[in-house]
Amino acid sequence: MLHLPGSPEWQRVGSHSTVLDYHLSMLHDTARMDAFRRAINETVKPGDVVVDIGCGSGVLSFMACEAGASKVYAIEGGPVIEVARQLAIDNGFDDRIEFLAGWSIELGLPEPADVLISETLGNAAFDEGIAAWTFDARQRLLKPGAALIPERVRLWVASAETFDDHGVVADWLHPNLPYDYSFAHHHASKTLWMVDLTPNNILGQPELCADVDLHTSADEAIVGSGFVQVDRDGTMHGLACWFDSLLCRGVTVDNMPPRTGSSWSHGLLPLPEPVEVHAGDQFAWDISIAADGEEWRWSIDLVE
Amino acid sequence: MLHLPGSPEWQRVGSHSTVLDYHLSMLHDTARMDAFRRAINETVKPGDVVVDIGCGSGVLSFMACEAGASKVYAIEGGPVIEVARQLAIDNGFDDRIEFLAGWSIELGLPEPADVLISETLGNAAFDEGIAAWTFDARQRLLKPGAALIPERVRLWVASAETFDDHGVVADWLHPNLPYDYSFAHHHASKTLWMVDLTPNNILGQPELCADVDLHTSADEAIVGSGFVQVDRDGTMHGLACWFDSLLCRGVTVDNMPPRTGSSWSHGLLPLPEPVEVHAGDQFAWDISIAADGEEWRWSIDLVE
Repeated sequence: MLHLPGSPEWQRVGSHSTVLDYHLSMLHDTARMDAFRRAINETVKPGDVVVDIGCGSGVLSFMACEAGASKVYAIEGGPVIEVARQLAIDNGFDDRIEFLAGWSIELGLPEPADVLISETLGNAAFDEGIAAWTFDARQRLLKPGAALIPERVRLWVASAETFDDHGVVADWLHPNLPYDYSFAHHHASKTLWMVDLTPNNILGQPELCADVDLHTSADEAIVGSGFVQVDRDGTMHGLACWFDSLLCRGVTVDNMPPRTGSSWSHGLLPLPEPVEVHAGDQFAWDISIAADGEEWRWSIDLVE
Repeated sequence: MLHLPGSPEWQRVGSHSTVLDYHLSMLHDTARMDAFRRAINETVKPGDVVVDIGCGSGVLSFMACEAGASKVYAIEGGPVIEVARQLAIDNGFDDRIEFLAGWSIELGLPEPADVLISETLGNAAFDEGIAAWTFDARQRLLKPGAALIPERVRLWVASAETFDDHGVVADWLHPNLPYDYSFAHHHASKTLWMVDLTPNNILGQPELCADVDLHTSADEAIVGSGFVQVDRDGTMHGLACWFDSLLCRGVTVDNMPPRTGSSWSHGLLPLPEPVEVHAGDQFAWDISIAADGEEWRWSIDLVE
């Protein structure tokens, strides 16, 4: 018989494997990693105190150390923080990084920071709370005039024909289901979905839906209104959402379709029923995105 | 401008969309649904009191009502229970179903049940706790001699060449990563992964790893030992796991590769490093699966 190296043992604790897989995909997103490294190298000065909100596996905190930070407070609300702690030790950063488990809005720091880093950019820009975390940090955790990475986040929307992706909503009405699932259909159609879009899925010109300067934004609803354009005939399944973000002067990151190798997907706000549309159609929308910690509410009214 | 039906509003609360998507995939698994309906129709008698542990969206409780149950206690620890409550109302079962939020081992019932239904079958048989839930229910929640759906669960293992699927482990050692992630690699290689396997991925004859009669099983570790066979040359990435289960006399359900339309995937216990193997190779294993509520520990020693 063959001899195997070691005697493997396996353990299943909650959804730990899924958590690790998610962070691995972000670490392998070279566009994301390169952009953040450039922004950190250009922003963090030797001796700076840095706070990293939503540090995940700790990679941006490690970059901050290499850029010269004397101290990094790395805050993370999920179980991955235990992995990050060990990675900091293994990579020789544990003398400069202090990990804080929890949500930044519920924590204080022993000293105000010179730089805020927060990669809490959701597929649809604000759905991981970046505006709320940054506003709170500016008030409580940062020195006046502290540097922010990112500095600015923009949310884009476009009318979208998603083909199969609308199935997650429509399949609740499928005749093969044994009971009446219209409530689940209703529920599903009110939720932001993650989808992977290509330009073929986009029915019209993207519209800038929100443009938030994180240096000046306040903890109020992100509101706006405008029109969604339809530039070709098709079936509108919902509103596609994506972001672009200025990390620091000259350095941007985005998840504009098509994504190629990005760890971000795109957001989809599905319509309850697909709507046949034609080139020239327009829909008026109002948006209101309110942050209150972990929960986010979106409303976009599509009206005549 | 076009008029859209209603004024859509969207909400993102935690991972609710993922939760719904998961339950939708199970409802669309016709083999699973048909098997459970047959077992419920053959087992539940008019007037029976039924307990459904891990009721999810409630579908098996609804079937129990249609089979004649006078009362169903539907227990669910996840947020989907709120969807199930509304579905019970919409489908006219709310007069017979009482939903109980939480984990069955922490709950009591006002009356002992005639039938236990529990579709807590994991991709690797016991990783959703079915043995522990059933053992506890037999002691506290059921009448003596109560019927069980399922009655019996078997776990199969086979040596597996998973090709890309081992990437979730190996990619933690990829040279493109900016730091030393060997701890994460170690962690990932100790975890049960969900994969989709075909017969091409199987290197040798499946072995029966555990055969648990739920009528007689006790809340002790599921233990056993045996040999993993290798029947062709290849690269062994880990141990594939799947189950088959006797729901009631004459009705079975399984996730044996290849899966076609199943809502179950397969389990993979990955090796830290792939091992070149040849037809005729054998590995000895010992298995110990201990249940203590939500956490499960596996150990399989592969030795000379």
